[in-house]
Amino acid sequence: MRSDQIRQGRLAGERSGDLEHFLASMETDRWIAEADLLVDMAHLLGLVRQDIINEAPARALMAALLDLHDHGIPEEAFDEKFEDVHAGKEACLIDRVGEDFGGRLHMGRSRNDEVATCIRIRLKEEMIALVRSLADLRRTLLDVAAAHTETVMPGFTHLQHAQPTTLAHYLLAYEQAFSRDTARLREAYARVDVSPLGSAAFASTGFPLDRAYTAALLGFSRPAPNSMDAVAARDFAIEVLADTTAMMTTASRLCEELVLWSTAFVGFVQLEDAYCSSSSIMPQKKNPDVAEIMRAKAGTVAGALTAAVTIVKGLPMSYNRDLQELTPHLRRGVEGAQQSIPLLAGMIGTATFNTERMAAEAGRGFSTATELADVLVREYGLPFRTAHRIVGRAVRHGSLDLATVEGAAREAAGISVVERGLNQERIDAVLDPAHAVAVRSIVGGPAPAAVAVQIDEQRELLARDEEWAEETESALSSAFEDLILKARRFAA
Amino acid sequence: MRSDQIRQGRLAGERSGDLEHFLASMETDRWIAEADLLVDMAHLLGLVRQDIINEAPARALMAALLDLHDHGIPEEAFDEKFEDVHAGKEACLIDRVGEDFGGRLHMGRSRNDEVATCIRIRLKEEMIALVRSLADLRRTLLDVAAAHTETVMPGFTHLQHAQPTTLAHYLLAYEQAFSRDTARLREAYARVDVSPLGSAAFASTGFPLDRAYTAALLGFSRPAPNSMDAVAARDFAIEVLADTTAMMTTASRLCEELVLWSTAFVGFVQLEDAYCSSSSIMPQKKNPDVAEIMRAKAGTVAGALTAAVTIVKGLPMSYNRDLQELTPHLRRGVEGAQQSIPLLAGMIGTATFNTERMAAEAGRGFSTATELADVLVREYGLPFRTAHRIVGRAVRHGSLDLATVEGAAREAAGISVVERGLNQERIDAVLDPAHAVAVRSIVGGPAPAAVAVQIDEQRELLARDEEWAEETESALSSAFEDLILKARRFAA
Amino acid sequence: MRSDQIRQGRLAGERSGDLEHFLASMETDRWIAEADLLVDMAHLLGLVRQDIINEAPARALMAALLDLHDHGIPEEAFDEKFEDVHAGKEACLIDRVGEDFGGRLHMGRSRNDEVATCIRIRLKEEMIALVRSLADLRRTLLDVAAAHTETVMPGFTHLQHAQPTTLAHYLLAYEQAFSRDTARLREAYARVDVSPLGSAAFASTGFPLDRAYTAALLGFSRPAPNSMDAVAARDFAIEVLADTTAMMTTASRLCEELVLWSTAFVGFVQLEDAYCSSSSIMPQKKNPDVAEIMRAKAGTVAGALTAAVTIVKGLPMSYNRDLQELTPHLRRGVEGAQQSIPLLAGMIGTATFNTERMAAEAGRGFSTATELADVLVREYGLPFRTAHRIVGRAVRHGSLDLATVEGAAREAAGISVVERGLNQERIDAVLDPAHAVAVRSIVGGPAPAAVAVQIDEQRELLARDEEWAEETESALSSAFEDLILKARRFAA
Amino acid sequence: MRSDQIRQGRLAGERSGDLEHFLASMETDRWIAEADLLVDMAHLLGLVRQDIINEAPARALMAALLDLHDHGIPEEAFDEKFEDVHAGKEACLIDRVGEDFGGRLHMGRSRNDEVATCIRIRLKEEMIALVRSLADLRRTLLDVAAAHTETVMPGFTHLQHAQPTTLAHYLLAYEQAFSRDTARLREAYARVDVSPLGSAAFASTGFPLDRAYTAALLGFSRPAPNSMDAVAARDFAIEVLADTTAMMTTASRLCEELVLWSTAFVGFVQLEDAYCSSSSIMPQKKNPDVAEIMRAKAGTVAGALTAAVTIVKGLPMSYNRDLQELTPHLRRGVEGAQQSIPLLAGMIGTATFNTERMAAEAGRGFSTATELADVLVREYGLPFRTAHRIVGRAVRHGSLDLATVEGAAREAAGISVVERGLNQERIDAVLDPAHAVAVRSIVGGPAPAAVAVQIDEQRELLARDEEWAEETESALSSAFEDLILKARRFAA
Repeated sequence: MRSDQIRQGRLAGERSGDLEHFLASMETDRWIAEADLLVDMAHLLGLVRQDIINEAPARALMAALLDLHDHGIPEEAFDEKFEDVHAGKEACLIDRVGEDFGGRLHMGRSRNDEVATCIRIRLKEEMIALVRSLADLRRTLLDVAAAHTETVMPGFTHLQHAQPTTLAHYLLAYEQAFSRDTARLREAYARVDVSPLGSAAFASTGFPLDRAYTAALLGFSRPAPNSMDAVAARDFAIEVLADTTAMMTTASRLCEELVLWSTAFVGFVQLEDAYCSSSSIMPQKKNPDVAEIMRAKAGTVAGALTAAVTIVKGLPMSYNRDLQELTPHLRRGVEGAQQSIPLLAGMIGTATFNTERMAAEAGRGFSTATELADVLVREYGLPFRTAHRIVGRAVRHGSLDLATVEGAAREAAGISVVERGLNQERIDAVLDPAHAVAVRSIVGGPAPAAVAVQIDEQRELLARDEEWAEETESALSSAFEDLILKARRFAA
Repeated sequence: MRSDQIRQGRLAGERSGDLEHFLASMETDRWIAEADLLVDMAHLLGLVRQDIINEAPARALMAALLDLHDHGIPEEAFDEKFEDVHAGKEACLIDRVGEDFGGRLHMGRSRNDEVATCIRIRLKEEMIALVRSLADLRRTLLDVAAAHTETVMPGFTHLQHAQPTTLAHYLLAYEQAFSRDTARLREAYARVDVSPLGSAAFASTGFPLDRAYTAALLGFSRPAPNSMDAVAARDFAIEVLADTTAMMTTASRLCEELVLWSTAFVGFVQLEDAYCSSSSIMPQKKNPDVAEIMRAKAGTVAGALTAAVTIVKGLPMSYNRDLQELTPHLRRGVEGAQQSIPLLAGMIGTATFNTERMAAEAGRGFSTATELADVLVREYGLPFRTAHRIVGRAVRHGSLDLATVEGAAREAAGISVVERGLNQERIDAVLDPAHAVAVRSIVGGPAPAAVAVQIDEQRELLARDEEWAEETESALSSAFEDLILKARRFAA
Repeated sequence: MRSDQIRQGRLAGERSGDLEHFLASMETDRWIAEADLLVDMAHLLGLVRQDIINEAPARALMAALLDLHDHGIPEEAFDEKFEDVHAGKEACLIDRVGEDFGGRLHMGRSRNDEVATCIRIRLKEEMIALVRSLADLRRTLLDVAAAHTETVMPGFTHLQHAQPTTLAHYLLAYEQAFSRDTARLREAYARVDVSPLGSAAFASTGFPLDRAYTAALLGFSRPAPNSMDAVAARDFAIEVLADTTAMMTTASRLCEELVLWSTAFVGFVQLEDAYCSSSSIMPQKKNPDVAEIMRAKAGTVAGALTAAVTIVKGLPMSYNRDLQELTPHLRRGVEGAQQSIPLLAGMIGTATFNTERMAAEAGRGFSTATELADVLVREYGLPFRTAHRIVGRAVRHGSLDLATVEGAAREAAGISVVERGLNQERIDAVLDPAHAVAVRSIVGGPAPAAVAVQIDEQRELLARDEEWAEETESALSSAFEDLILKARRFAA
Repeated sequence: MRSDQIRQGRLAGERSGDLEHFLASMETDRWIAEADLLVDMAHLLGLVRQDIINEAPARALMAALLDLHDHGIPEEAFDEKFEDVHAGKEACLIDRVGEDFGGRLHMGRSRNDEVATCIRIRLKEEMIALVRSLADLRRTLLDVAAAHTETVMPGFTHLQHAQPTTLAHYLLAYEQAFSRDTARLREAYARVDVSPLGSAAFASTGFPLDRAYTAALLGFSRPAPNSMDAVAARDFAIEVLADTTAMMTTASRLCEELVLWSTAFVGFVQLEDAYCSSSSIMPQKKNPDVAEIMRAKAGTVAGALTAAVTIVKGLPMSYNRDLQELTPHLRRGVEGAQQSIPLLAGMIGTATFNTERMAAEAGRGFSTATELADVLVREYGLPFRTAHRIVGRAVRHGSLDLATVEGAAREAAGISVVERGLNQERIDAVLDPAHAVAVRSIVGGPAPAAVAVQIDEQRELLARDEEWAEETESALSSAFEDLILKARRFAA
């Protein structure tokens, strides 16, 4: 195949392999190659509809495109001598139907709008898949939470035992964040879902294309409203990378918990063997490798975001070749999230939680001291800051038994709590972790009833998100099927 | 004032000034100090409503809070010995009403939920202001575009003269991006607009707070649904920083245009003197300094985003002090955008565009060669790729006159275009930049009619965004006024 | 004072306060204001030496400069109407000695070389201070290590108990990294240590300045060799920010250890109260806040680096105003490290290590299983991979006693280890953590003798680094003192 | 081949393909696979030397290793079921020589020290290659500069015509930066050049390995001094990524120049066709695509740096699996630079500079106004600031002819410059760009003689850097050849 159908007019000279490799985007183009065929078919149907192309070349081209679709784009089209798959595929078409026919497909089109359309198609698919993966993860978190609304465990601030909570309350905190990640993706989808096709190099074209028609064929909501913006903007890529960065940053936090919880020190969780590795030298080791790599993926995705922003910064309009270098980062960022989220769901769903260890730790480290201070306020009338100081002093003395608390009260506030009626029995009741959880029943709190509300609300939200994913995916698939059907009918 | 009301119970020892400075967040706390007073008032009204606090201390506290609100928080409350303004302000209250009263305000509350509430309040205000600034910028772009729908100028790809377009079409490409930035902020607003108040340290509290009541008092849509998530999550900050990064990256592109356009080489624009600086050594210089600094602000905001992500990465639940270090980055990112966008509107709105220079350059560099190739296809029946090669070859020979094009056709495709009917007159008409613009009349294109559609659509969208900003801001202001009114009535 | 001595020739119009604030660099200029006076004095002495300025204005200017040096630059010079302190200070000089004299100081100079020289002077001082702080930290680590060469503790991989080591070995791993940070700073110093002065706007000047003379006066090793590079390059800033990022990333790891080690779960360390905070709500809390904020500072410094790189990316020669926006990031990055490192030394130096807890944990989690596998290889002739599999299987069965190991050997390799001579006594000896440490005596290992070698080597390296810091600082101070002395003599 | 020699003892269960892919590092492992064989051979020779392994298994293993070295590691060893090439290769060895022999190679070793050693070997090779590429680029810049010491062109600040300079002076500014990049790499090399081998999992090993011997065999300067640091530290990776980021940021600036200079507006340079692409739609286009992609590579490398820092932040000791995720970023960063620098040299070396355009632009935009102001100071006794104001005012009036300057002097300073002796002839001489260059002859300036000094100095520095690269590369190659020779002798 001739490799120079684009260069041959204007430019002379041969290129070294290094140069070809530097310019080529073939690795990433595999990601969009299938979408590119759909774009070709839609564009061709559009040319036909507007009488821009005659029937003979159109039929020949469509047959060739369907052949590529049915049997795959030949490997040769990915040769780096072509710079990109768009040129490689065109050479391939010309090879099959001749230049007189093959050279007509690109009428009213540029690689600038072509590649932007391909990227958006692929990205939409990835985003729907991500919403689905997030839904699975959220369902897992909700299910495990629902099974553990009474599983008392310590909550931490500054990684210090702070106050008792439940495993359900803990996991639901993460589910909240992942539901926001879902919302972000859904909203970003609307911005990705516009078709650049017909924008050509940036100024659209003098050919009377019907951009709304091709947009509909490709399952887009509408054509991008400004042709220069359509080829030059990559804020949609920055937005999606930011969304995956936020998501993976939250995932890194949950992975950190899993790493901590599976240490010998904490022992709150036992991960399924499949998510662990052993050591090549230490035969006893069971390491939470999946959680560690996933924690690191937050860095990978954040790096992709930094790369994208730095690349776009300061570029004037319209298309600059710099944008080609951005696409692999977009892909890497999305893939990093797409690989991680399902495994995170799997890890949580198959983990064994050691509820005895959790219960045993729930009351440790004076984690119910706040409750005692609150009771001194509520039941014995002390100002909060005074009660706080008394209990803090007692902790410093090493105990929260009645004698110590009384001593602390005299020392720190010059008062007697015994005289006010405090006794050991009341202290014991107050310091019970389950009691501390039970009284925290306000909106958002860890008490089982409050948690049940959270689960119900979030299940409803999840159902709506799943419905969106199903409908959006189904609409997209239908569009693609219709497009191929139309193409077959036309070529037949 | 005593500085140790929080440490005194549990911890011993003095701190050095360096240590105090390292731990203190006072610089950023000035950003949230006013909001903090509103939070105090709302919390206090909530305590009263739920009978958690008696009337005497409540009235005394409210009077003191209103005094701080009316006359400002005293400078001493920002002394770094207090670590943060929350502690400084509490010391200040205790100083005024005594510990017995002053120590009661913090019942059922922690600095963790307090600061998260304050940040969200301030951020909401900043986001509304940003939407307003973006609206001004967009209106300016639309107005300037409306005045220049017939101002032909060259469009560029790879910074090479590519095809003619109009100034209107060019500026509208940017307006599209800024309208997406607006949408992102509006959507993010919904996620910021939940109240953490009542989440206390992370596990909520045993005091029977009515979180919906205080949320409403503070103008929030509702209380955050999970108390652990409410204090520990900062994905809302990452999201807003990502939104401002996307926005400033686009702004950096427009600033790059202004820098390029105001060079002696290009000469498309003359910026108002106010937006320029001269040189301390070169008396002739008029430099586009504002555009340069604004271009650099994209880096500042991107750096704030990187910092925020890196800080949050790998943090387990719930609150960790690391989060304090994030807030200044949030503030810096938002301020960087908030300072820039109005000045960008001013720069564009006051700029003088040299439309003669633009027109003169519009046809340069064979920028209408595409149109000639298209016409060879449309009117003379050549395959696109062949026409492309012929015109490319002619350009290589240095001219697009009839003789050169004919020679190129024979050389590159073995055909005669003269025989097919091409003549010099047709070539001249086709190569006229205004003609190239006029025929690009499809959706999104630069032809005046197509541009008019874009302007109309975007004006409508802008109107809706402005309405949102007005309503949201007004609702927020009303809430704050009502709150203060309620506070005054109670204290009276 | 007149504010427009630079703008007045070329530009018209007034500026709003917002605009002035946007353009001004006053906050960061305070960082370099003192250095700027030194630069003025050196430049003035250079003008005198080369007979570019007459004695009368030179004496008047020098007297005014010394007055500013002795009594401080007046606050008015930092008014944002001046854009920067260079302009503010010049206005101040003109105010004092009149324009005829005051307007002569800037001969052969631009703000471009002036500010680059100031930044380098300040940065050199900061770098020396950082090397000193690192030296203190390293000495602390070496001292604590020297006291704990026999303190057996568990080492971790994947945060799982892995093999026993000692506290000394552990801390020395960090000291290695901080010694590399020191080396990086020393090497970067050589690149910072060249004087831009005399480069003027970028093309040097027609005035016959002696750049080597002013460079020497200011304590630089030599003048920057190319005047365009001298004002336009900021790779030195990126380098120093990268050095501080590497340093703070390592610090974040050590802080993570301190946070983990001070949890109730691990209990390896008790931090001094001064480095901890309590909670506003939970009276029992003692939180490692300093370690947490320091861990977060890694994000702050990394964000400053990202900002700097993004700002510089794609800027053509020579000076662009974008560079002004970089300086605050340089300052923030350096300050983040400079605040942290001394506190880290303090935290480690005052920490109480719970050596009993460490010893108790050293043998936990089958952490000496590797040693058992190795002994099966060394003493009982098994292939390593077989021994590894047998011990791994025994761990899975929950014990490393003789019966379990024998069972595992039969099950996993079809052999008997008892027949080969293994007995319980040998197993017990091998599984003793102290034994595992003692046999790891090769270069770099944790055995006390091997650790002693590391301490000795690193103490020597530290001594050389401290010597460098002392000599470099002393040379710099001497240069500044000499310069001021020369200035006084001239003005007298 | 069996895939589970490491997991089989401790862990149960099968893994899905997704999981295997998530855990596997095979793509990056191809980068280090050859180095891994060298590490195996050195480790094996070390085991032999210390009598840790018997001759029979050692010979068999060595023969198998040499076979892999001579004929390549079989593709199966890269199957993702093995997680990494270390495990894949071990399975391959066991397959060939049996577990009894094959299982002995890993004695006293862990994948932790193995992979760290491999990465350092590969990185050293890459760093030497980068120094060589930089040397080629610098030589090209020096050669082109040497040919253009009299090629007058405009220099820019704020992208405005500022003052005349020469192409030589311009290019030398970039050469300075690339020479600093070289210095950074050389210095970083010393920190990379230590051998982790023998550190095993992190605690070294009870086997009496001679780490200095294997370090020497592998061409390292010495063994890493602390075994925990040796496997856990990645600051060397952050450092090298920072070095490549600084380098590529400078390259992005030079590429920006090339993009600007090859516009129709500027026209200073014509790039070789090989470094350009045309358009798929616009036949006339010749786009500087290589320069654009290279400009974008700065973002790619900066993203890799952000990823690396984010990944390492907050990781406790010692090895965590997160580190595996870092290596691809290290590779991507180094490759981004390694691909770019030689092409940048090629682009500059083959570019055609349009010296007439440069000369024509050199005096444009009042670029010699500074010189006129200076002459008013030097020859006519005006204070600098007054002269600056007069010339600035004349520029505002649009001309620097005698009448305008005289008018400006009367208007802005109330004086006559004509009375002081200024005449049109003097003005004309002063405003000649060549004159402005010629008088800028101080150190670092653009005058040909000053530039000649810069070229000479930098050629010397370049020669020393090239010598270093040659010697270092040759020493490394010799070590590898000796190692393989020793291996062959032993196996024979």
